[in-house]
Amino acid sequence: MRHLLNPLDFSVEEIDDLLALARDIEQNLPQYAHVCDGKKLATLFYEPSTRTRLSFEAAMLNLGGNVLGFSSANSSSAAKGESVADTIRMISCYSDICAMRHPKEGAAFVAAQKAQIPVINAGDGGHQHPTQTLTDLMTIRSMKGRLDNLTIGLCGDLKFGRTVHSLINAMVRYPNIKFILISPPELRIPDNIREDVLTANNVEFEEVGNLDEAIGKLDILYMTRVQKERFFNEEDYIRLKDCYILDKKKMKLAKEDMYVLHPLPRVNEISVEVDDDPRAAYFKQAQYGVYVRMALIMRLLEVEKPC
Amino acid sequence: MRHLLNPLDFSVEEIDDLLALARDIEQNLPQYAHVCDGKKLATLFYEPSTRTRLSFEAAMLNLGGNVLGFSSANSSSAAKGESVADTIRMISCYSDICAMRHPKEGAAFVAAQKAQIPVINAGDGGHQHPTQTLTDLMTIRSMKGRLDNLTIGLCGDLKFGRTVHSLINAMVRYPNIKFILISPPELRIPDNIREDVLTANNVEFEEVGNLDEAIGKLDILYMTRVQKERFFNEEDYIRLKDCYILDKKKMKLAKEDMYVLHPLPRVNEISVEVDDDPRAAYFKQAQYGVYVRMALIMRLLEVEKPC
Amino acid sequence: MRHLLNPLDFSVEEIDDLLALARDIEQNLPQYAHVCDGKKLATLFYEPSTRTRLSFEAAMLNLGGNVLGFSSANSSSAAKGESVADTIRMISCYSDICAMRHPKEGAAFVAAQKAQIPVINAGDGGHQHPTQTLTDLMTIRSMKGRLDNLTIGLCGDLKFGRTVHSLINAMVRYPNIKFILISPPELRIPDNIREDVLTANNVEFEEVGNLDEAIGKLDILYMTRVQKERFFNEEDYIRLKDCYILDKKKMKLAKEDMYVLHPLPRVNEISVEVDDDPRAAYFKQAQYGVYVRMALIMRLLEVEKPC
Repeated sequence: MRHLLNPLDFSVEEIDDLLALARDIEQNLPQYAHVCDGKKLATLFYEPSTRTRLSFEAAMLNLGGNVLGFSSANSSSAAKGESVADTIRMISCYSDICAMRHPKEGAAFVAAQKAQIPVINAGDGGHQHPTQTLTDLMTIRSMKGRLDNLTIGLCGDLKFGRTVHSLINAMVRYPNIKFILISPPELRIPDNIREDVLTANNVEFEEVGNLDEAIGKLDILYMTRVQKERFFNEEDYIRLKDCYILDKKKMKLAKEDMYVLHPLPRVNEISVEVDDDPRAAYFKQAQYGVYVRMALIMRLLEVEKPC
Repeated sequence: MRHLLNPLDFSVEEIDDLLALARDIEQNLPQYAHVCDGKKLATLFYEPSTRTRLSFEAAMLNLGGNVLGFSSANSSSAAKGESVADTIRMISCYSDICAMRHPKEGAAFVAAQKAQIPVINAGDGGHQHPTQTLTDLMTIRSMKGRLDNLTIGLCGDLKFGRTVHSLINAMVRYPNIKFILISPPELRIPDNIREDVLTANNVEFEEVGNLDEAIGKLDILYMTRVQKERFFNEEDYIRLKDCYILDKKKMKLAKEDMYVLHPLPRVNEISVEVDDDPRAAYFKQAQYGVYVRMALIMRLLEVEKPC
Repeated sequence: MRHLLNPLDFSVEEIDDLLALARDIEQNLPQYAHVCDGKKLATLFYEPSTRTRLSFEAAMLNLGGNVLGFSSANSSSAAKGESVADTIRMISCYSDICAMRHPKEGAAFVAAQKAQIPVINAGDGGHQHPTQTLTDLMTIRSMKGRLDNLTIGLCGDLKFGRTVHSLINAMVRYPNIKFILISPPELRIPDNIREDVLTANNVEFEEVGNLDEAIGKLDILYMTRVQKERFFNEEDYIRLKDCYILDKKKMKLAKEDMYVLHPLPRVNEISVEVDDDPRAAYFKQAQYGVYVRMALIMRLLEVEKPC
């Protein structure tokens, strides 16, 4: 039995295979309408995340399966002191696969050890969020036609941004990737990513403080939200949050085929005037997220592609 | 693509057509069990409303479709600062149609501008709640056999009662409707409804302060809840809330074929002793609400009536 | 129309019949995948109980039906002052059967009087929780092959433990049952159970304060959680909660075919080192809970066993 706990749990070949399935789902959606008939997905959200939860639910419903679960910890047995290990044993009796979101790092790993069903990590604290990474990979491949030979700009909160760290980890496995890391000094990428991932893999990168200078060189611009909850004081948040706002003026400096991604939700780091630019790919990303989760559920449940 | 944001978005002919479909659904329910197979309804409830939400869910399940969504804002991305416009773009990737309840007036209108799926306004602040109005119209037509030539009493909180304002707006489009407006002076109907809707359309109406005097003349009595949250102080609420309570004694003064409607939930404005009176139509109303929402979902999804 | 409000609502024969159906479901699950197609279960949880709610939802989905409802009172109409009687009338329009959890004793009884659909009591305060009792009975019968001629140990909070009281009431109807009641003096079984149920039915029992002495005589050991919310002060809770912890050492004193049950969630009253003991039946219990609820839903909806 396989789980998905970390974006690197799957080899490059397995990811290629999964993205090919997701692509086929996108193109032949109605053919997949019953491949998971009678299967149940449990969504165990110990902290709310509407976007991720609904994306999983839409994915399972699209496959003909059903969904049960909870959307916040206060409506779960956790409030009565039950351990994650006990909860997952119970959930194994109620469903065929589960997606778990938990504020504590490692919660999904603990669950997977006791689970009798496949566990998908739908985010564990600031740690991992592998289905977001799969979504990002599918979006990049769909927009650019490839996952190699790309210059990727990562902009905003590179210190705490979980999705950014995961994306770097996933992309360094492809040939000829270059990163441009765009952030204020306070929110630069952590040392362990810089050294253990980028330098150790001989991946080219530069760190800059200015989006205007960098944007013209990029094939992909990955914007991130500057999350209020990551800051110790209000002042720092207000000073920094608006520094890296993408607007029409900046988009004029970018290549014609540079696509903008964002894990969403955004607050104001991408001006709404950019939404209608054909290079804005962040809403398409939400759609790809459904297809890639459909493919993932099928793989983990070992459901065959319909013929 | 059509939305339903305001009860007047549909013409009288379109409403007649919708109510005819709802009537057919009532009479041939099993025939509709699969007309929305594979379709998904998103219920986006930024404020809780169990009744409305479950009515929509029952409607979609009765049609063979599925449901996903959230039941309060604190379990939604809104808590992370996402705009309604962004949320609806995401939801457009996850579902085929949505019903939105929001505390702010106009929220559903904003959503409809960005949505790639039909949006049903399931209540936006004190503004509109069009499916309640459709439910009321279906109930009146089912009980009385017509939507014209009626004397309709509206009783209780006519100042803040959103459903009452919508019903007046909807009914003035039918011939020979007379209203009797029964309320304490503090909760009389607003000037804009009195002048711009009733007077402007040459609709006969009278304003009275006493339910006993008026009840004998009515074909329909529409009771409303006096909502605590509309009052600035506790005293005013207590003084007024019990003034307009319908009981068995008052029902004796009414015609044999006068039906009582109420948008529910009630608190104590209708005594439970009235519940078994055959003229009490307020629980039937809940059932009609499911049928009319089934018809609405079919129309907006352009699903054909089964043959 | 039948409801299930109290574990004794069903005769011994009816329970035998229900458990036989549950057993058949366990052995032939796929045959039951469509027996409730088109039916809707409403889960009305006025207080959160993830375990019970998800067990009902899994049961209904396994039968091909659908689910709607709410998981806590603050997202229900109760917050607007609606009575349970009015809510159940509304719910009768939206669903075919309902499971209700409510903090007030007797709430499900009130609901059943006004309901036009079968009502299952999914817990009303400290009063009744009949589907837990059915689950316990199925587990005992599955593990031991019988419901008579058993020595049953009940351990922990016997004063407030609703599940323990219900299990005693249910088991005294079978021949040759003996109870050993293991608790601290403060949490002994209430007088009315001791006298009106045990003594009145001539059922053999002993009350002891020490799990070590009793465990060797038992066929079934039913452990319970010592719930913090039952205590008036923190000190009493801390002093008592760890007194009756089952661990490997104690399990060595037990028979080879003594099975351990627990209604779950546990906190620490069963050490996790016991989980891998083949006599630990408390996770299997969760699975039996789904089968017995499937059987119950079928019976109350008068759905026939597939042939």
